Amino acid sequence: MGGILDGVTVLDLTRVLSGPYATMLLADMGADVIKVEKPVTGDDSRSFGPFVNGESVYFMSVNRNKRSVSIDLKTDEGKALLMALAEKADVIVENFRPGTMDRLGLGYDRLREKNERLIYAAISGFGQSGPYSERAAYDGIVQAMGGIMSITGEKGGRPLRVGSSIGDIIAGINCSCGILAALVNREKTGKGALVDIAMLDSIVAILENAIARYQVAEKDPAPDGNTHQSIFPFETFPTASQDDIMIAAGNDSLWARLCEAIGRPGLAEDARLSTNPLRGENHSYMYEQLSDALSAKTAEEWYDILTAVGVPSSPINRISQVIENPQVQARGMIQSFEHPRAGKVTVAGNPIKIGGDGAAEYGYSPAPMLGADTLAVLRDILGYDDNEIGALSRAGAISCNQ
Amino acid sequence: MGGILDGVTVLDLTRVLSGPYATMLLADMGADVIKVEKPVTGDDSRSFGPFVNGESVYFMSVNRNKRSVSIDLKTDEGKALLMALAEKADVIVENFRPGTMDRLGLGYDRLREKNERLIYAAISGFGQSGPYSERAAYDGIVQAMGGIMSITGEKGGRPLRVGSSIGDIIAGINCSCGILAALVNREKTGKGALVDIAMLDSIVAILENAIARYQVAEKDPAPDGNTHQSIFPFETFPTASQDDIMIAAGNDSLWARLCEAIGRPGLAEDARLSTNPLRGENHSYMYEQLSDALSAKTAEEWYDILTAVGVPSSPINRISQVIENPQVQARGMIQSFEHPRAGKVTVAGNPIKIGGDGAAEYGYSPAPMLGADTLAVLRDILGYDDNEIGALSRAGAISCNQ
Repeated sequence: MGGILDGVTVLDLTRVLSGPYATMLLADMGADVIKVEKPVTGDDSRSFGPFVNGESVYFMSVNRNKRSVSIDLKTDEGKALLMALAEKADVIVENFRPGTMDRLGLGYDRLREKNERLIYAAISGFGQSGPYSERAAYDGIVQAMGGIMSITGEKGGRPLRVGSSIGDIIAGINCSCGILAALVNREKTGKGALVDIAMLDSIVAILENAIARYQVAEKDPAPDGNTHQSIFPFETFPTASQDDIMIAAGNDSLWARLCEAIGRPGLAEDARLSTNPLRGENHSYMYEQLSDALSAKTAEEWYDILTAVGVPSSPINRISQVIENPQVQARGMIQSFEHPRAGKVTVAGNPIKIGGDGAAEYGYSPAPMLGADTLAVLRDILGYDDNEIGALSRAGAISCNQ
Repeated sequence: MGGILDGVTVLDLTRVLSGPYATMLLADMGADVIKVEKPVTGDDSRSFGPFVNGESVYFMSVNRNKRSVSIDLKTDEGKALLMALAEKADVIVENFRPGTMDRLGLGYDRLREKNERLIYAAISGFGQSGPYSERAAYDGIVQAMGGIMSITGEKGGRPLRVGSSIGDIIAGINCSCGILAALVNREKTGKGALVDIAMLDSIVAILENAIARYQVAEKDPAPDGNTHQSIFPFETFPTASQDDIMIAAGNDSLWARLCEAIGRPGLAEDARLSTNPLRGENHSYMYEQLSDALSAKTAEEWYDILTAVGVPSSPINRISQVIENPQVQARGMIQSFEHPRAGKVTVAGNPIKIGGDGAAEYGYSPAPMLGADTLAVLRDILGYDDNEIGALSRAGAISCNQ
């Protein structure tokens, strides 16, 4: 078989990260994702570094497997063209500030009149409703407002931002999830839906036990370095190398194996540390003893020793080490493609592996040049001839192959 | 209409966080999620704190809207019962270590023989394939191995773990996405699929531009506090209160508005800071100037001032502030239900909002007591009578209402 989403057509008006991440997941799975970009500059992230031969690797990492059509939505002809494409599409996705599509005359209500099967998905900072709805947001804003920063950082230190834009990315995954649920629903009802994803909502939904802890203790959770709240040991320790090692010994039998492996079998007999609650109570003592023992070898040596006896541990990999990790490689999570201008580009693979009867081996085609597929899409999807395309081009409504 | 996933039956063998998060998203959307738990203790997280009246709030936060059936999969009768349920289900989800279900005689191949439409979804630390496949993992291990820690932390400081278990949670969202894609595909092919989600893959897929940056610079990205890599200012600043404020002024016009609002209009004219690249080059100078100005008022005051002029900013909310935030409230992201033993319990709402024709207002029913729905499920789904149920109970294969 081909892709798991073969036959699903997605009109993609999104820019930068959250929306492109959502449609990347769908494109990898086989949907025909038609990226609609403004002429001349295209998606803003085409101008975000880092660059190779003038091409943005940032842009390429989340726009592989898509086609690019360049339409000027400020022209009447461009709007009519978008409307014509929306009549043929299964899904339209946008991440403008709420209200923008309505002002263009291309809002959900208008498009639904033309195509009641259309699934309209919108990602925004704060959502399509509520008092902050029309405000602009960036990832840093929703990480601060949504509480994840307040529980990330050193114990006693200031709150820290997660080092990647998870506000955008998780909103993107939630969006593709909502689109797929709406597609499942459409099989029964014949009708589309409005999928409304907010970056702020997406952060609030990943706080895990922090809301529960606040409720019970009536005290705000705070950053706590790398220490787990309820499993001991489950944290990082210094070693003989510059690198720390993460060790998670989630039960008493793993605890005994850990003590043995680091040459301190006596610790497993130590009454102060014999159960998980006791290891929590006497945490400083435990940490001291383990750190002392672990300072004898490098992180890499300990990782091999602990792995051999089945105690979960990991070095704290830098990006180069992640790329070379044998498990990451074996799972196809590092992918390369040849881009016509930039040459070989390496990106993260799709984490949603679907096999069995519906086996899908993902292909990874390079991200499109701006407008590269304008002609093909107008011909294939709308059946336009050269005269019609020429007229649109002269009206400044489209551009091709920039 | 009812839920967007009305009519979809999910057999849920998952425990703790990653799997329960996946099926929570489906249950909120209306799927009938039947949680299969071992007798006496049930899902391990029923014993994870914090507790209210002996009930785990941790467990309740990700298991609302589900039913609980208690089956002992170590008995032959229990296995046969699970097989019978799998014949009627659309989806089965598990997060055992790879190989466990095969050893129970309940692996994908075996279940597929009985029900070729079944979608079998598995979440594990490292995935169903590759050299690390059979290893146990915890969130801390995949955060360390997958690289997110290496880019989170203070500049020059040690790598830090993100303060919630995003390795589990993002794997859970990816899993529900894969299940929904497989349901869409089943409409065409009539066949189920194997959805194989790894926590490690899920972390590698959210590194954003870190892989691109390594590729171009051939230098590992490092933690950089709260400073953005390419937008200036986009970071936190100290204020007159104890709290910092996050400010993101993504372009020159926002920069000018920011300088005006903090009473330093001269900064906007300062040639050293007139463009984004210059503000990056002269970052320490910019940071000094802004910090000096921002030290005059509290974070709360600056937030009001900057919001009034449209400069994106946010206080760094603690959990209690997140819960009371008017936008978070307006979006229904804080939900409560009455639990028969624990009383009122507050949880995060579902971030996937689906409206329009297929409008779905999510209901939030309390998480089930262990085995509360054993009888109802055996009667409704399998049509068993009291004799059959009595025999299963005497064989120790099921238990009810503990």
